[in-house]
Amino acid sequence: MFARTQRARTTAVRVARQALGSEVSRLHPPSKIPYADSDDTAKPEYYTDHARPMHDRMEAYVLDLQDRLVTALESLDPSQKFVRDRWERSDGHGYGISCVLQDGAALEKAGVNVSVISGTLTPGQLKSMRDRRAQTAELLSDSEQFDFRVAGISVVVHPRNPHAPTAHMNYRRFEVFRQNAPEGEPPVMAWFGGGADLTPSYLFLEDAGHFHQTLKDACDAHDPSYYPRFKAWCDKYFTNVHRGETRGIGGIFFDDLDDKEPEQLFRFAYDAGNAFIRAYVPLVARRMAMPYTQRERDWQLIRRGHYAEFNLVYDRGTKFGLMTPGARIESILMSLPLAARWEYMNKPDPDSPEDLLLRAVRTTTTWAK
Amino acid sequence: MFARTQRARTTAVRVARQALGSEVSRLHPPSKIPYADSDDTAKPEYYTDHARPMHDRMEAYVLDLQDRLVTALESLDPSQKFVRDRWERSDGHGYGISCVLQDGAALEKAGVNVSVISGTLTPGQLKSMRDRRAQTAELLSDSEQFDFRVAGISVVVHPRNPHAPTAHMNYRRFEVFRQNAPEGEPPVMAWFGGGADLTPSYLFLEDAGHFHQTLKDACDAHDPSYYPRFKAWCDKYFTNVHRGETRGIGGIFFDDLDDKEPEQLFRFAYDAGNAFIRAYVPLVARRMAMPYTQRERDWQLIRRGHYAEFNLVYDRGTKFGLMTPGARIESILMSLPLAARWEYMNKPDPDSPEDLLLRAVRTTTTWAK
Repeated sequence: MFARTQRARTTAVRVARQALGSEVSRLHPPSKIPYADSDDTAKPEYYTDHARPMHDRMEAYVLDLQDRLVTALESLDPSQKFVRDRWERSDGHGYGISCVLQDGAALEKAGVNVSVISGTLTPGQLKSMRDRRAQTAELLSDSEQFDFRVAGISVVVHPRNPHAPTAHMNYRRFEVFRQNAPEGEPPVMAWFGGGADLTPSYLFLEDAGHFHQTLKDACDAHDPSYYPRFKAWCDKYFTNVHRGETRGIGGIFFDDLDDKEPEQLFRFAYDAGNAFIRAYVPLVARRMAMPYTQRERDWQLIRRGHYAEFNLVYDRGTKFGLMTPGARIESILMSLPLAARWEYMNKPDPDSPEDLLLRAVRTTTTWAK
Repeated sequence: MFARTQRARTTAVRVARQALGSEVSRLHPPSKIPYADSDDTAKPEYYTDHARPMHDRMEAYVLDLQDRLVTALESLDPSQKFVRDRWERSDGHGYGISCVLQDGAALEKAGVNVSVISGTLTPGQLKSMRDRRAQTAELLSDSEQFDFRVAGISVVVHPRNPHAPTAHMNYRRFEVFRQNAPEGEPPVMAWFGGGADLTPSYLFLEDAGHFHQTLKDACDAHDPSYYPRFKAWCDKYFTNVHRGETRGIGGIFFDDLDDKEPEQLFRFAYDAGNAFIRAYVPLVARRMAMPYTQRERDWQLIRRGHYAEFNLVYDRGTKFGLMTPGARIESILMSLPLAARWEYMNKPDPDSPEDLLLRAVRTTTTWAK
């Protein structure tokens, strides 16, 4: 149903045929993408240091993953580097490191952000946590106040080429404490959340298969129930309900994960985060130098409009961020594309490549073996 | 503080100087804009027909206003016409007429929509009404269900030229009934809502003054308390809270207006809606043929990104629409710009024209005399 190796050309008559973007001709897929081959590298010190508090190990991990992912992405176009900047919250409650590349030939906009922040949960944030899970409602009583701290990595990559898919990745560990708990008191609750998902403008079966299979393999090594559960959760979560469409073709998503020992969950988050590099970066390398037309660029911008809709209307992380007093808006909204387009009543021709993409986001599909 | 008749040129060094858009040279401001001179035309039949139900008179009015506004906007560029289409809800609960012009030389995207719909209020919609007003919570009891009908006009105009401001206008009458009330039973509650506001990318003092003064004059003829109240309400409502910025430079906004006889409120909505044509369309005529640069176009697209943020994150009408089962998404999201842009950490040079605009949306200013 979604075969696109042989692209549908039935509607080519009204398509501008010339390739766009002088950047295409000068891009050359890298011969090797760092960290994209396998995961049999030596484990870093924080991975094995069981005595260190989990929050600190998560912080070390997301900083390490940020470094590796930025290195892998920079290999796509060595002429353009990420801009790295460190920010601190003015109230002293945390810091972040933002790595951003904007208006590049391979990557139109990409952000790889780490943040390590703490604070007091607002009533709105507590309510949304309680609404989400009965257990939270029990543990976080209405009459008390609670502090939190979180270490996480958040990634969005919007490539320039309409054939190269957008991807999002996010892993975080969240801890909730009694307000003003003394240093060293264990959290009332703690959990992992995160996932990774793919949003193509044009569908390539082999890309969808590679992305899902790589994530599935990482999941299966920890728990065979993970991939099916988290794949379904991802399809459900990343939905533009008002359009009856998923944002893209999914991946994995989970939140409030605390049903195993923290050590086990940390190892899973570690493997899943690393797998993202292998799952995604080679897809951009494969597609970034393909010629494309104005029509394909416009379609990509329309899909990016839908991407912005999801992030602003539904995304839990964005909402949490916008509700956090003193939050760094530029980092929260970095996920939005550089450019987006909203055409009234845009409707692709039946069986066109654009229509095939729409069918993919309007049905649930099994992408991995 | 915001004088821009003499534009700041201090940052011109890094600005592409050539004008963009071949459309500029072929545009000529119309010698006369229909319905934009004064309001001393004869009153239409529905205005004086006191025996007719108010819902029907409102329906007749918004259809009439739609016609006049489309005619006025089409005078800006006679080569491009609005596409008019009528839609009906599949459940038979209403219809709408959408008039849309997209990718025009003067107007990049403009929608003038009428909708006349009815239905049963969802629990979410009832909750948001009750939260808004104590009186509603009393009249619409928790244990009952309620039907509604609404006739309204909703307008967004995004001109092409970055010097021509975007505007939004909306007037509606909302009626709530006991569920399955027999035909002719008066509504449990009924109110008027609406307003008009201006969102420039570049600030011209004389434009801001003209827009606000025209609306103020229309308000003052009905109640001297209206303009100050509705101006403040507009500033408060159209705020991107997360950015600490108003969407634009305001205008008037009101909702739940039922503190006078329906007849009086109808006359006010009639005058305010008509005043919008005089307040706004001449501003587009004045600016649409000005030369502009790529930098100015990019700034406009960044401001349109913020416009999309407000509409998707905060706007009550959009939220109500997205929550309405079977709603026509294309009409609800027609307010989004054709193109928008999100640049990470964009920050205008101090005292540049872009910076002056930012100062205007970060303070409260008196624009009318």
